[in-house]
Amino acid sequence: MERVAIIGASMTQFGKREEWIRELLAEAGLACLEDAGVDPADVEHLYVSNMASGEFEGQSGVVNALVHDLDAIPAYTQRVDQTSSSGGAGIYAAWQSVASGASDMTLLVGGEKMTHRTTAEATDVIASLTHPVEYKHGVTLPSFAGLTARHYLERFDAPRESLAKVAVKNHENGVDNPKAQFQKEIDLETAMESPIVADPLRLYDFCPITDGSAALMFCPESVAREYTDEYVVIAGVDGATDTHVVHEREDPTIMGGVVESGEGAYEMSGYGPDDIDVAELHDMFTILEFLQMEGLGFAEHGEAWKLVEEGYTERDTGELPINTSGGLKSKGHPLGASGVAQAVEIYEQLMGEAGPRQVGADVGLTCNVGGFGNCVITTIMEAAR
Amino acid sequence: MERVAIIGASMTQFGKREEWIRELLAEAGLACLEDAGVDPADVEHLYVSNMASGEFEGQSGVVNALVHDLDAIPAYTQRVDQTSSSGGAGIYAAWQSVASGASDMTLLVGGEKMTHRTTAEATDVIASLTHPVEYKHGVTLPSFAGLTARHYLERFDAPRESLAKVAVKNHENGVDNPKAQFQKEIDLETAMESPIVADPLRLYDFCPITDGSAALMFCPESVAREYTDEYVVIAGVDGATDTHVVHEREDPTIMGGVVESGEGAYEMSGYGPDDIDVAELHDMFTILEFLQMEGLGFAEHGEAWKLVEEGYTERDTGELPINTSGGLKSKGHPLGASGVAQAVEIYEQLMGEAGPRQVGADVGLTCNVGGFGNCVITTIMEAAR
Repeated sequence: MERVAIIGASMTQFGKREEWIRELLAEAGLACLEDAGVDPADVEHLYVSNMASGEFEGQSGVVNALVHDLDAIPAYTQRVDQTSSSGGAGIYAAWQSVASGASDMTLLVGGEKMTHRTTAEATDVIASLTHPVEYKHGVTLPSFAGLTARHYLERFDAPRESLAKVAVKNHENGVDNPKAQFQKEIDLETAMESPIVADPLRLYDFCPITDGSAALMFCPESVAREYTDEYVVIAGVDGATDTHVVHEREDPTIMGGVVESGEGAYEMSGYGPDDIDVAELHDMFTILEFLQMEGLGFAEHGEAWKLVEEGYTERDTGELPINTSGGLKSKGHPLGASGVAQAVEIYEQLMGEAGPRQVGADVGLTCNVGGFGNCVITTIMEAAR
Repeated sequence: MERVAIIGASMTQFGKREEWIRELLAEAGLACLEDAGVDPADVEHLYVSNMASGEFEGQSGVVNALVHDLDAIPAYTQRVDQTSSSGGAGIYAAWQSVASGASDMTLLVGGEKMTHRTTAEATDVIASLTHPVEYKHGVTLPSFAGLTARHYLERFDAPRESLAKVAVKNHENGVDNPKAQFQKEIDLETAMESPIVADPLRLYDFCPITDGSAALMFCPESVAREYTDEYVVIAGVDGATDTHVVHEREDPTIMGGVVESGEGAYEMSGYGPDDIDVAELHDMFTILEFLQMEGLGFAEHGEAWKLVEEGYTERDTGELPINTSGGLKSKGHPLGASGVAQAVEIYEQLMGEAGPRQVGADVGLTCNVGGFGNCVITTIMEAAR
C-alpha cells in the first residue's frame, strides 16, 4: 500500500482570540492550502477536529461552514470528535481517507474556541466525558491528575521538583514559538510556589484554556511528489482506549491507551522508541508527560522523572527533545487543535522549518490523549527527502 | 482492493424513549454484536454517529462510554458528526477504516436522544448549522423546505397531493415496521388537512423528533466469510457538499450534494440508477424524497412527482420501492441514527430478513442528507450470497 504523505501544515496564533470557531478554522485552513500549494478545488475530503463547538458556542455544522469558507465545495466533509484527542483522531481519519483510496487530497483542520467561557464552564463540558460514577462525585480531569501525581511521586520516590521541571522546560521551549499562548520563561521557584490546584499539582502543572486552530494536508506519496520534493510521511498511526472509569485501572501510573496505541504505531512503522528523534507529548498536566514517556518506551516504568532531572528531554542538549513547541503547557490547548498542532510541530522539525526550535530529526512522534487516557492516538512521522 | 462487507445490523425501538444516549447506543451496539456473532474483544474500531449529545444532554465523550459499555476496550473509538447525515458519514468512516486496512472489524453505532427537549430547542440546535446570513433571519430547515416545495409545485405544475402521497406511502410502510415511531396509516385527506407548518408544507410533510439508535458491523469480505455465508457488501459509497448558504444555489430544486455523491457511488459500484432494486431516501421533509429521486437519476428533473402519482415507488407493487422502512417520516429521525438505520433496512432487504416489508432486491441504495443538502452521503449495497 502506498504511504500517506503530509505536504503542508499551519497553525494560527494560540491564546485568547477574538474570532469565533468558524474564523479560526478558516484561518488555519487557508494558510495550509497556501503552505501546501494546493488549490481548494483539488481538496477531496475535509475533516474538522473539534470537540464542542455546540457546547462552547451554540454552533453546529462547522464542517459545512468551513468547506464554504475555503471554497472547497463539493469536497466531502465531516467532524471528528474524540474529546481532547480529537486532533489525533483527525490525523487517523485523514490517514484512513487517503490510505483507503477514498481521497487523493485530504485537508484536516482542528480547532476550538474556549476562552469566552469561564474556566468552570469549560471544565464542566470536558468533565462530562468522565463516567457518571466519577462525574457525580465531582471528579474532573485536573483532580484525576492530582491523585495520579501524588501516587507517582510517593511510589517512585520522585521529587516534586521533577514535575515542575517539565513545566519549566516546556515554557522555555515556548519562548521560541511565536504561535504559543505563553512566550515566557518561568523558573523552578515560580512553578513550585504557584497556587495549588489539585494537590500536589499547582497552577504551572496545568495547560491553559486556549483558542486556536491548526491544519495539515494529506495525500498519497505519489501525489505528494507532484507538489514537492520534500515532505513528511505517516510511518505509523494507531489509536486505543482504556477504561472509562479511571479507578478501574489496575495501575494508575500506566495508561493502557498510550501503551496500546504506541505499540500499534511502532509495529506499523517498523520503528521503536530508540528510533524517535523528537516527540510531542500531551502535557495537559505535567504528570502526563511522565506517563507517556514510560508508556511509549522512552523510559522505564517509574523512571521518566529521572530522565527529566538528567536533561534527557531538553531541546538543545537532550537525547530526546520532548515538546519543542512548548507543549500544551505553554503553547496552549485548544482541544480539537492540539493533536493537529503536535503534528504541525513534528512536520516543521522534520522539514527543517522549526527556526530557533530546530533539532536534528528524521523520525518524530506525537501522542494525543483524550480525556484522562480514555482514548489515545500515537502517530509516527518520517522525513522524506 | 478487497471489498468491505456488512455482517450484522440492529436498531432499537424508535420513538420517545426513557433511556439516555449512552443506554440507547449500548442497546443497539450489543444487539449488533449478537446479530453478527462477533465477540466484543474482536472489535478493532468503534465509530459513533451522533450530532449533538453535548447540546441535547450535556454529555460529551459518548464514544468512550460506549466502548466501556460494550466491553470492547482497547478498541479505538471516535465520534462522527455530519449533522443530520452523521449516520451516512459513519458508514463512510467505517468503510474507510476497513478499506485502509486499519481495522478488520469495525462497529458503527448511530444514535440521538432528543424528545426530552422541546421542538423549539431541538430545531434551534439543528438550525445553528445554517449560515449566519440565513440563521439570523430566523430561517430553519423546515422553512427552507417550505420555500423549496412551493417553488417545485409551481414550476413543475405538480399537485399538492403528490407530496402528501409520499407521507401516505411512508406511513403505510411504517405499519409493518415494529421499530418505527409511528405504526399507523394515514389517509390523503388527513395529510392534506393537517396544520400548516411552513406553507405549503403541513404537519404530515415533516418527520418527527425521535430517540433511537442503530448499528452495523463492517469487516473485509475475507473475514466476513469466517462468520457467515450470506452477507452484504458496500459496492459504492461517496459523500459531497453543496453551498452552505442555501440561497446561493443556482436551482433550488437540485441538491448538488445528492447529485455528486450519487455519481461517486454509482461510479465506484459500477451500477446505475436502473440497477437499484430498493432505496431508502432522506424524507425529513416530503419534498426531499422528490429531490433525491431526481438527483439520483430515478426520475427526470421535475418529474419525480409523476412517478409517485403512478405508484412507481410503492413497496408491494412499484418498480422501485422507496422507504420500505417507513422512512424518516414514520420510522422517526434520531439524527445520528437515521443514516445507519437506512442501511439497516437495506441490509435486511438484501438478506431477506425484512418480514412483511420484504421486496425482491439484490442491490439497494441509501441517501442521507445533512442540513438542507449541505452534505450528502450515498451508499450502494449489494447482497453476497
